[in-house]
Amino acid sequence: MTYCVGLKLNAGLVLLSDTRTNAGLDNIACYRKMYFFEEPGERVVVVMTAGSLSVTQTTLARLDEAITDEMADETTSIMLAPTMLQVATIIGDTLSRTRREIIEQCRDLTQQASASMIVAGQRKGGDMRMFLIYPEGNFIEATEDTPFLQIGEHKYGKPILDRVVTPATSLADAQKAVLLSMDSTLRSNLSVGMPLDLAIIEKDACAITARRRILDGDADFMRMSAAWSAALRESFVKVTI
Amino acid sequence: MTYCVGLKLNAGLVLLSDTRTNAGLDNIACYRKMYFFEEPGERVVVVMTAGSLSVTQTTLARLDEAITDEMADETTSIMLAPTMLQVATIIGDTLSRTRREIIEQCRDLTQQASASMIVAGQRKGGDMRMFLIYPEGNFIEATEDTPFLQIGEHKYGKPILDRVVTPATSLADAQKAVLLSMDSTLRSNLSVGMPLDLAIIEKDACAITARRRILDGDADFMRMSAAWSAALRESFVKVTI
Repeated sequence: MTYCVGLKLNAGLVLLSDTRTNAGLDNIACYRKMYFFEEPGERVVVVMTAGSLSVTQTTLARLDEAITDEMADETTSIMLAPTMLQVATIIGDTLSRTRREIIEQCRDLTQQASASMIVAGQRKGGDMRMFLIYPEGNFIEATEDTPFLQIGEHKYGKPILDRVVTPATSLADAQKAVLLSMDSTLRSNLSVGMPLDLAIIEKDACAITARRRILDGDADFMRMSAAWSAALRESFVKVTI
Repeated sequence: MTYCVGLKLNAGLVLLSDTRTNAGLDNIACYRKMYFFEEPGERVVVVMTAGSLSVTQTTLARLDEAITDEMADETTSIMLAPTMLQVATIIGDTLSRTRREIIEQCRDLTQQASASMIVAGQRKGGDMRMFLIYPEGNFIEATEDTPFLQIGEHKYGKPILDRVVTPATSLADAQKAVLLSMDSTLRSNLSVGMPLDLAIIEKDACAITARRRILDGDADFMRMSAAWSAALRESFVKVTI
């Protein structure tokens, strides 16, 4: 499994993904699930992926190929697309086509190849936007009312987001919120695992403002996780029924 | 959907269920999902159900019928079965048979009829035991290491249980833990809804010690829910990354 979460706030975009992939329980590996496309100051696009690795890797490879192709134009390259909506459409179409081809190859298997993605970014002169792209290539967008999107194992980490995230949340608080959301998921589901990839994109920077890989045993993350556990237990003692 | 949770602690059993059932999103109803079988001082069995209402209601009706049947014996009646293990076996067999029959009736539908149950109780002279019965009739049991079992929409409410529940948890704290676990689920999933049914069975009482229906708008529950939200937000502010 996977857990990726993205927040679209007034102050910017905050994105977090884990890196664990598994085929069954006895074949566990570490793969990056966060991909960057950046022309600093002009355009930044971050893609996070969940689902069959063969689908997500092939989709990303095709997006890369389309960018470097000498015939690349605004309908094929996410680095030339005029709007974030067009970026999401190109990624959705590529995902949908790749998935259909792989399903066709795997038609003798009972397990379906599938994948979904979160695409977030901004183009100079445009607004920040964030989309969740479904396996079929269609998508939904984060809004004022629903400023976060999740893919993969999303349920364990949703209660904390429901409680603390609004569009007005600061980037520092947002970073804390996604890390605590991930922390709850890591504790409750073995198939989501460290290290983590965190990215922050400030509004109108059109570039990655901060990017960090949080390794297993990271002192700050462990301290935060322990402090949160302690705070939760304290809160539990204080609340009465 | 449904959310039911049971804790098996050194001090006793604590059980909580919601009451919402839905067929699609436009047909929502309220049904009890917690059933009591009791001969105070001798035997107490509580069953909580999740899944297709036709499967769970028919299974419970058959268990009732088997109890009142004049041919009832220790292999058919959960009120005569000599052990909690035998109680779980009778319920598992009844569930499995009922489910197979209903699947056969519904074979033209794509949706599968299915259900699972939590069975908890004690017989005089025996130990408290708690089982999770799968749709196929097989079951697992709560242990020292895993003192809680959940059925239905279990993920949202698991992080709090993972953090605070151990076999040594007091019955008062356990009550708080299951209510907070339910509170997180209610907030994050519309298909789980009030009112709630709560039951407490003290160790060796072999009877229901306390039983309470918590209605929508219950002042105590709302106060606890608000206090927990406030405490979580306070904790969130205190924790630093």
